[in-house]
Amino acid sequence: MAAHADAALARSLPAVQQPPVELHRAMHYAVMGAGKRMRPLLVYATGCAFGAPLERLDACAVAVEVIHAYSLVHDDLPAMDDDDLRRGRPTCHIEFGEAMAILAGDALQALAFEVLANDSMAGIDARTRLEMLRVLGHACGSHGMAGGQALDLAAVGKLLSAHDLERMHVHKTGALIRASVRLGALAAGCSDPSLLGSLERYGHCIGLAFQIRDDILDVEGEVERIGKTLGKDANQAKPTYPAILGLQASAAHLAELTEEALNVLEPMGESARDLRDLARFIAERDN
Amino acid sequence: MAAHADAALARSLPAVQQPPVELHRAMHYAVMGAGKRMRPLLVYATGCAFGAPLERLDACAVAVEVIHAYSLVHDDLPAMDDDDLRRGRPTCHIEFGEAMAILAGDALQALAFEVLANDSMAGIDARTRLEMLRVLGHACGSHGMAGGQALDLAAVGKLLSAHDLERMHVHKTGALIRASVRLGALAAGCSDPSLLGSLERYGHCIGLAFQIRDDILDVEGEVERIGKTLGKDANQAKPTYPAILGLQASAAHLAELTEEALNVLEPMGESARDLRDLARFIAERDN
Repeated sequence: MAAHADAALARSLPAVQQPPVELHRAMHYAVMGAGKRMRPLLVYATGCAFGAPLERLDACAVAVEVIHAYSLVHDDLPAMDDDDLRRGRPTCHIEFGEAMAILAGDALQALAFEVLANDSMAGIDARTRLEMLRVLGHACGSHGMAGGQALDLAAVGKLLSAHDLERMHVHKTGALIRASVRLGALAAGCSDPSLLGSLERYGHCIGLAFQIRDDILDVEGEVERIGKTLGKDANQAKPTYPAILGLQASAAHLAELTEEALNVLEPMGESARDLRDLARFIAERDN
Repeated sequence: MAAHADAALARSLPAVQQPPVELHRAMHYAVMGAGKRMRPLLVYATGCAFGAPLERLDACAVAVEVIHAYSLVHDDLPAMDDDDLRRGRPTCHIEFGEAMAILAGDALQALAFEVLANDSMAGIDARTRLEMLRVLGHACGSHGMAGGQALDLAAVGKLLSAHDLERMHVHKTGALIRASVRLGALAAGCSDPSLLGSLERYGHCIGLAFQIRDDILDVEGEVERIGKTLGKDANQAKPTYPAILGLQASAAHLAELTEEALNVLEPMGESARDLRDLARFIAERDN
């Protein structure tokens, strides 16, 4: 499924040979690395649970991954987290320079919306596609991902409460994860408010679980294994779950969230198998 | 009409009191300054030429201006043009810091798409709105504005031909100007290919004319009048029309483009009066 996402991404990016070549190279570099494709996998798992063919889900999968890739490029910039290494490779601005990295991120954000608006496949009516564009726009903006980044910036060097930490992550990574689930459901034609509510809660839980696991890995992991500079959060005085709750309580909270995510999927029965697998993977991954 | 655009913009931006406050303040700062609102004026002038009520054009006007504002914020960053002054005020990153300026730009881009997808006013069907989102996405991306920025970056310190210079501007500023005209026409229900073609050409001509006038002002202008650091293009070895064609030939080219812009509007008769006024304003403006 990650390979299917890769193929859809490769088809959607502008060809590297097309001018402006350097910009297109930077966009490919940012997207076509060794990402986990978690957001596309969420789109596919949700859509398939409602019986949608993969092809109908490709545009959503591409859109959320391209947005994720752009957010990493901008997040790594010297003025932001100042990271040199990402997924075991030099970050985009190290490879292409800071100006090109800013532009690549900007162009990727535009591409995500264009892909979703371009999606000409049968089976999704124009009104639903507009709704999907609204969901993506809201998830990326100041009440979603960019807002979470701003809360993150404001939090550096401060003592956050567990509540404020959660609020930051609900926006910074949670918004796009919840949007991935919602886009998959919308593309598959799901309009049952109760099911959409359950999926929203599922997205909320796994989004936070993902972040807690990330924070735990940052403390415990080995640099070779996760391919980014470790202990970096603590060095930058970034608030993390282990720092605020302690390691043991963080692991317990992660387990609770994963259990809730599995519980809310109950009404979907066997069709939600892939979504369950993803929830478990997020809780147990070691990179 | 610029005041009408200002009111629509103020309504569309997130309230400054809402968290994250600093991000919302930076977004307001970037948008609500002393801009000329040329792109919204183009939306209104085009839409009104086809009889659309102003309210039906507001979402397009907001979207293009918010994109323009975001592009200026990112363009001014230290890694890009490194400008401290814009519209007579400190640039966004001087006022709010570099990280917040990057985020404000990112959030503004998302907002533009959200506003266009949110537009719930009667009179524009869902298919047309999807087409409008496609037009905006394409104009902002690597084949449009962001691509033009990349060409601009690559051009610094190089001797460009007049052809390459035009190619850069056709993307960098031209794409969004042409999109403004097209969005206005689409929102007004214009689907006549011949008229859309004429408007595309009008947008092309005034976009280039705008840039030539900008370059000429950069050489001739006075710092108090245009409110940004002058002679900056030459200092940064940026290619400009006066540098490549000479001042006199630049002025002649500007006059030709303006004449062509007026000529292609002929079939629209009296209804295109505002579009004509804008073409003349662009050619004659002194800031």
